[in-house]
Amino acid sequence: MKKIMLTGNTGKSTIMPGMSLKDLIDFCSIEKTIVITDNNVHRLYGEQFSRYRTVVIESGEQYKTLDTVHNIYEKLLELEFDRSSYLVGIGGGVVCDITGFAASTYLRGLSFGFVPTTLLAQVDAGVGGKNGVNFKGYKNLIGTINQPEFVICDFETLKTLPKAELSNGFAEVIKQALIGNKALFSRIERNREAALSLDKDTINRIVYDSLKVKTNIVSQDETEKGERRKLNFGHTFGHAFEKTARIRHGEAVSIGMIIEARLSEIKGMLKKKDVDRIKRVLTAFGLPVSFQGNAETIVEAIMKDKKREDDYIHTVLLDGIGKAGIEKIKINVIKEIAYDMCQPG
Amino acid sequence: MKKIMLTGNTGKSTIMPGMSLKDLIDFCSIEKTIVITDNNVHRLYGEQFSRYRTVVIESGEQYKTLDTVHNIYEKLLELEFDRSSYLVGIGGGVVCDITGFAASTYLRGLSFGFVPTTLLAQVDAGVGGKNGVNFKGYKNLIGTINQPEFVICDFETLKTLPKAELSNGFAEVIKQALIGNKALFSRIERNREAALSLDKDTINRIVYDSLKVKTNIVSQDETEKGERRKLNFGHTFGHAFEKTARIRHGEAVSIGMIIEARLSEIKGMLKKKDVDRIKRVLTAFGLPVSFQGNAETIVEAIMKDKKREDDYIHTVLLDGIGKAGIEKIKINVIKEIAYDMCQPG
Repeated sequence: MKKIMLTGNTGKSTIMPGMSLKDLIDFCSIEKTIVITDNNVHRLYGEQFSRYRTVVIESGEQYKTLDTVHNIYEKLLELEFDRSSYLVGIGGGVVCDITGFAASTYLRGLSFGFVPTTLLAQVDAGVGGKNGVNFKGYKNLIGTINQPEFVICDFETLKTLPKAELSNGFAEVIKQALIGNKALFSRIERNREAALSLDKDTINRIVYDSLKVKTNIVSQDETEKGERRKLNFGHTFGHAFEKTARIRHGEAVSIGMIIEARLSEIKGMLKKKDVDRIKRVLTAFGLPVSFQGNAETIVEAIMKDKKREDDYIHTVLLDGIGKAGIEKIKINVIKEIAYDMCQPG
Repeated sequence: MKKIMLTGNTGKSTIMPGMSLKDLIDFCSIEKTIVITDNNVHRLYGEQFSRYRTVVIESGEQYKTLDTVHNIYEKLLELEFDRSSYLVGIGGGVVCDITGFAASTYLRGLSFGFVPTTLLAQVDAGVGGKNGVNFKGYKNLIGTINQPEFVICDFETLKTLPKAELSNGFAEVIKQALIGNKALFSRIERNREAALSLDKDTINRIVYDSLKVKTNIVSQDETEKGERRKLNFGHTFGHAFEKTARIRHGEAVSIGMIIEARLSEIKGMLKKKDVDRIKRVLTAFGLPVSFQGNAETIVEAIMKDKKREDDYIHTVLLDGIGKAGIEKIKINVIKEIAYDMCQPG
């Protein structure tokens, strides 16, 4: 098992793909730790961490709110948790994001770690230190950047994921390949079946390489002033779709990636055959590549995007497969493309 | 005007004692800035920053809550604030703490600065990067550590402070002298009248030296793992009094300092004549040096102290005037002393 180290301003993170949830005890003591999980994960895997005191939250994006965080604060207060205490989030992206935010703000910062139990969280939310909650319908509007001390990626937990949720995770894996590792993209393309059936060696190699792309970028630019924006490939449009159409994150990012790949093609940065190749791979992993819906609401959602600065949005385009560049695009241009791409359903 | 630079993990802070509120424009643009202030400060000084968009909160510790922070989030959302936006807190400790927390958590962190308008905020809350709000009656239970980009200490704003509020600030100034600058303590002792009448040169020199003690400590230990705990001299007991008796922060710290000075005396670290000298100075600045009240509630409040780790509390004792040491003291011992010190009123 190869570890990945990520050093940020806020601390060091040890990421362990292929490690088991059962090894949690090596990283945090029973006495000083509280586990945050959701009812779904608790039902499936609760037995494996039953010795820890546990706060079970409702599962689902709709509970990724400040109210849920306040309930956790109350619980920590009730348990007389102090600065030597430890929080561990065991679950998907919602659990990791909430745990990270609660830990980062309680007593001005407790230590924390994650055991992400979805593929999406293993390659995305669990790694890189971004945490937070939604506010008034805007994704991750409130949060901080703070590295978890450890991240245990147990591939056994992926076996109970619904197929659509697994595809959701592969959207981010494919994104990471597209922005930073051409060979990884080819490997994903060639090993679709082994990947989707969670063949241990295949998934280990893919997750490891995908995490390397992400951690290399984050270690250069933890607070997203430049380089880290590359990780937003597919997300400028993706977040807007996700908000508007209430589809899964990975599905929204998949459509977003196609739009941004087409933008890259229009700019002469990406060949048409590569756009088609990306489409084929996304489709093969069960991900959508087109969208039918209302353009107005998409545009409005883009206007509230965190990546907006004045009249510009930083959008990520592909300079061939495996290489990304950040382009500052005028809101007006984005609007036009949005109207062009969204056909009324 | 001499600047003080403070470099933390979370950023650099430029602290400018003697600078004027009117110079704010040199640090943040009208377009990108929103000012957070309270109704009291707005009434007195609002004219000086009337060109900035402003959110006015209610003044008082009881509004230092997550609800107030949520209202600020809503306002920022309404104004379509983005990552290039800037928050400036103009007011006392409550305004600075709230502004810092809102800025640190909105969009995972906006840039921010302070114009502290009370002496207490100029030497304490405004400097060092601690921010946060109270929760369920516990002071600063929720917050982060994040440095403001600039701190403008305008001594003109101190002229409208009630006498008791000015004394409140001097409690922290005296504390800073006691833990780190013997000569400053003597200067405060000698220049009581000039200091209390806000003689410009006197206050400038005292605030500057006091800030140097604080920033030297913070730059060694931003996240309070060791050295920074020295700043809590008088606060272990102080916070408990503040919570229980609802007295001013400075008054509570004043009583706390006497208790912790007496503890230092009992341990043979401080001479009785120095304890008496500290008492005289605090009294001369209008601060209380004894307390009548219920010990049970004090002890209970100490149990919830952020500085508690398991059965210990890190308490700061004086090793002579101008030098502090951190002692890990058993909760039981603390309890005994609390019972001993608090006589029913």
